[in-house]
Amino acid sequence: MHGFGRVPAYPEALPPLRWTTAEFDDRHALASALEGVEVVFHLLGGSVPALAEENPAEDLRRNAAASVELLELCRRAGVGRIVFVSSGGTVYGVPRSLPIAEDHPTDPISAYGIHKLLVEKHLGLQAHRHGLRATVLRAANPYGPLQRPGRGQGVIAALVARRLAGRPVEIWGDGRVVRDFLYVDDLVDALLRAARPPLDRPDTPRAATCLVMNLGSGIGRSILEVVHDVDRVLGMEGAEILFRPARAVDVPANVLDIGRIGRELGWAPGTGWLEGLRATAEWLQSALTTGEVRP
Amino acid sequence: MHGFGRVPAYPEALPPLRWTTAEFDDRHALASALEGVEVVFHLLGGSVPALAEENPAEDLRRNAAASVELLELCRRAGVGRIVFVSSGGTVYGVPRSLPIAEDHPTDPISAYGIHKLLVEKHLGLQAHRHGLRATVLRAANPYGPLQRPGRGQGVIAALVARRLAGRPVEIWGDGRVVRDFLYVDDLVDALLRAARPPLDRPDTPRAATCLVMNLGSGIGRSILEVVHDVDRVLGMEGAEILFRPARAVDVPANVLDIGRIGRELGWAPGTGWLEGLRATAEWLQSALTTGEVRP
Repeated sequence: MHGFGRVPAYPEALPPLRWTTAEFDDRHALASALEGVEVVFHLLGGSVPALAEENPAEDLRRNAAASVELLELCRRAGVGRIVFVSSGGTVYGVPRSLPIAEDHPTDPISAYGIHKLLVEKHLGLQAHRHGLRATVLRAANPYGPLQRPGRGQGVIAALVARRLAGRPVEIWGDGRVVRDFLYVDDLVDALLRAARPPLDRPDTPRAATCLVMNLGSGIGRSILEVVHDVDRVLGMEGAEILFRPARAVDVPANVLDIGRIGRELGWAPGTGWLEGLRATAEWLQSALTTGEVRP
Repeated sequence: MHGFGRVPAYPEALPPLRWTTAEFDDRHALASALEGVEVVFHLLGGSVPALAEENPAEDLRRNAAASVELLELCRRAGVGRIVFVSSGGTVYGVPRSLPIAEDHPTDPISAYGIHKLLVEKHLGLQAHRHGLRATVLRAANPYGPLQRPGRGQGVIAALVARRLAGRPVEIWGDGRVVRDFLYVDDLVDALLRAARPPLDRPDTPRAATCLVMNLGSGIGRSILEVVHDVDRVLGMEGAEILFRPARAVDVPANVLDIGRIGRELGWAPGTGWLEGLRATAEWLQSALTTGEVRP
């Protein structure tokens, strides 16, 4: 196993593996990390939604172009399969109906979402043209242990950290925005299934070798409900909420239809909501105590 | 009126206008050309399909990123409307049914098509977020006078020039590939209608201000038929055809459903097929005679 990216935040949480520390757009480092690799899990973004929004052309030139380079390099290195984690929360844009199935129109209202879609399309192209097997997982909002607060992504970690620090929680908009949350262990389970799927049928036509699947809980929860449930697992109540102006990049609701991934990979979310929240809260509590995470 | 781009091939064919000669990615030149402009027609590609294919990451960094910059600059300059000429021949990929309507899935099998789609999505984003009015015209294959052969795009000009020079014509594949051809005057008519459309209703919700429409003849013709009809208007027969290997970027068929643009803009193709071919052939014949175009 070979990892690639910036210095891992929690190397001790990783299984034994080689690690190449490099920037995503370092072609040479990427090319040599890909030697002899059979399956690539592409989870690199190089950006968070707010940065992509600030300068979309720059995000395109740096991050999206690096993803396109990666696909080319994978093809040249003879990689057999790429599993790409796309963004189920942003590629669809404002939903016309809920839950959202994979054939829903894709009209993102964020540059972040557009650029995830772009990588999906290039994967489809590689699959069609060169027979690369590709799996796109349009993931909901992941949460769970090891997600650090204050990184511009990950509302649950942010909420838990604020509550544990006794500070008011911040919400963009009125808190009625609905999201689909995915526990990290379930995400990992889906990644592993996607890497060795039953869908490798020799009779699959080339054009069909890029399979796009939603990956989420299939359940929508408002941010206000999340605040309430975070309090519940922490044994607290009466969170003070600071309502900030709604952000233009936020779709009003996002809940994913997870029928396809169930049929194709036999995957289903295995972790209950409160169970996942509890594990997240416990990890953060202990990480704050040991100083691993700063409040 | 203000034009922007490389040196125009036929400046005498243009109406009186200012012209800024600059590369597409020259931000400063673009920004100053946009001052005081109400409607922008975005027809710049900076690339042809074959080049985008050779190095998709580079095409993304240079050309697609320049388009995204242009949209940002338009917004800052207070441009009211952008009319973008996208590619009806490539954004859909392999058609699931013919003719292709605008809600057909968009799975391009060329980097060129993916990058046109990317610009469409960024236009949709600007429309949704900033109220910019945007019209996307997914154009079929344009042809007509002033299209020069030997530019890597424009099969009709290439065929006519070859026949006039008494050389064999070259075809990629078996010639049964079907395409939708759009006469240049009809394309211009659609552009002008898109610039002042009846669809500027004050009650249009923001999310609906990016209107995507196919623009074509609605009629499919195989390349072999085109060769035959070119001979017909030239009063020739028995074209010698060199069959080259089919290209992976070519979809097997592309015919556009043009119902929407008829309803929205009252547009319909006004030039008959043989009439258009004849005008094209006449122009090329005279341009070859005067040496304006080299065989």
